Amino acid sequence: MTDTGAEKTTAGAFCALGDWGTSNFRLWVVDRAGNVLGRRQSDEGLLACADGRFTAVLESHLAALGASADLPVAITGMAGARTGWREAPYVETPAPLDALYKEAVAPAGVTRPVFILPGVCQRTTGPFDVMRGEETQLAGAVESGLADGIFCLPGTHSKWVELKGGKIAAFRTVMTGELFDLLSRQSILKHSIGDDLAFTADDRGFSDGVTEALADGFALSAHLFSIRAAGLLGGDAPKPAARLSGMLIGAEIAATRTFLPQGMTVHLVGSARLTALYGRALEIAGTQSRLLDGEELVRKGLFAAACSLFQSSEVSR
Amino acid sequence: MTDTGAEKTTAGAFCALGDWGTSNFRLWVVDRAGNVLGRRQSDEGLLACADGRFTAVLESHLAALGASADLPVAITGMAGARTGWREAPYVETPAPLDALYKEAVAPAGVTRPVFILPGVCQRTTGPFDVMRGEETQLAGAVESGLADGIFCLPGTHSKWVELKGGKIAAFRTVMTGELFDLLSRQSILKHSIGDDLAFTADDRGFSDGVTEALADGFALSAHLFSIRAAGLLGGDAPKPAARLSGMLIGAEIAATRTFLPQGMTVHLVGSARLTALYGRALEIAGTQSRLLDGEELVRKGLFAAACSLFQSSEVSR
Repeated sequence: MTDTGAEKTTAGAFCALGDWGTSNFRLWVVDRAGNVLGRRQSDEGLLACADGRFTAVLESHLAALGASADLPVAITGMAGARTGWREAPYVETPAPLDALYKEAVAPAGVTRPVFILPGVCQRTTGPFDVMRGEETQLAGAVESGLADGIFCLPGTHSKWVELKGGKIAAFRTVMTGELFDLLSRQSILKHSIGDDLAFTADDRGFSDGVTEALADGFALSAHLFSIRAAGLLGGDAPKPAARLSGMLIGAEIAATRTFLPQGMTVHLVGSARLTALYGRALEIAGTQSRLLDGEELVRKGLFAAACSLFQSSEVSR
Repeated sequence: MTDTGAEKTTAGAFCALGDWGTSNFRLWVVDRAGNVLGRRQSDEGLLACADGRFTAVLESHLAALGASADLPVAITGMAGARTGWREAPYVETPAPLDALYKEAVAPAGVTRPVFILPGVCQRTTGPFDVMRGEETQLAGAVESGLADGIFCLPGTHSKWVELKGGKIAAFRTVMTGELFDLLSRQSILKHSIGDDLAFTADDRGFSDGVTEALADGFALSAHLFSIRAAGLLGGDAPKPAARLSGMLIGAEIAATRTFLPQGMTVHLVGSARLTALYGRALEIAGTQSRLLDGEELVRKGLFAAACSLFQSSEVSR
């Protein structure tokens, strides 16, 4: 948790921006130009606030930053889920990212202006799908001039998004991270993987797994067991955790061939570890990738919404 | 646990046949024609015997059947695993099923003749793979005149096997059952599935899932999340557990297109519930299936091995 000082944030503060995820909470106080005056981060995500602590958590962090009692706040993420602070209904694809603020909702029980941005859902442009939070990062990408392109946001549930003219044209959630956790820790593969989950994008097992998954005829559920069998049959088997990760990420990239235009640079948004793995896997697939800063994107997306929501406010700060 | 009576089994007994799986133990005493004189079943599988109780468990069931002290026993399954009673090294594909007995091993610490049949492994005819127990069912199929064909043995780890001229030409393990358990009970999908795991092969959700998975462009990890999203977006979503099962079984059948000859009748060996689901899924895929009795097959395979192992024995019974 960081606190850059109360004095500093009160002067020139325009609003606060909150990214309220399932497991984490992040807050920034920014000036009228979007410059960060103070920031907070904690593990008080949705899961920690499900008992209704949203107002208290938000106010405690605002107080720690010395925010005035009327400083407005724009929030994205799981705070807007049905099980969150107040449900912010999904905007449906094709979803214009410069208009998220129009569907923002105000939770009850706060005295300051607080708005929660909507998520995005897909009903007709692909299989049913939902996102909450990633759309605001993508709004930040549009603010950065990236109104068209392919975006990959790897994680527990990776999102692949096609932006067209500043709108989310279509997207897909791939359960790669969750499958890796379940398979490596709770399936029969755990007997081959053991506790050795450490590997890097440079491990042979990882590239082997990616290459295997990109090949014609690959089918995830029909290839996983070979990780176990390779362990039983001995020989020069590559590190099983690396191979499992490569197989899952490779399968994810192979799947995108069926629903995304090919040959375009993929914009990667995520942790250093995951973007390194995905960047390497994309390289093996012959696809260029470019790394974007996820925190900067979400702040830009939130700031753009905040400017629309709060610019005509008479509240003086 | 059943016991058809000690008196009956001692008279005319030729040998005992044991199927020692991970979770279950089954034993039959048969006469020289392979007719069952007595049978036992319990949950004393490998997991319950890992502390070295193999001899005691086997002898207790033989005693309950009134078997003589010198009645020989042929065993298949996980008792021959590295972590079992005594390791019976794998026979490699292409594996002749009428010769399994040649690689049988005798565990120490028993006074009667006991042999454990080997499993089968694959190193060159497909991805690394292993089986223990299914090869004996397939030996039983060969004994029944099915020396060529495609066999599907659904379960926690389904096996798909191609028999050619009485040999296992190639096979593949698909982790369908384990993925269903993990995904329905421990992944984010559990929030949509809840406790409602009851469904049949006739449920629309099941056929929807199968159809989805058989379609071009299907990729398991990129379609699973739509089960969750369909639940969140409401509407007329089919039963999620049925759809998940259909998707996984459909993905399994779709995968076999890449490594098995198509257009042949699939011989199904397994529980009534699973073979009903697989039979329906194969029907949707346009493939004929035929049900075989798994217990009869394993006995036939064991009996054939026992005849080779024990026929020249001087032990009189």
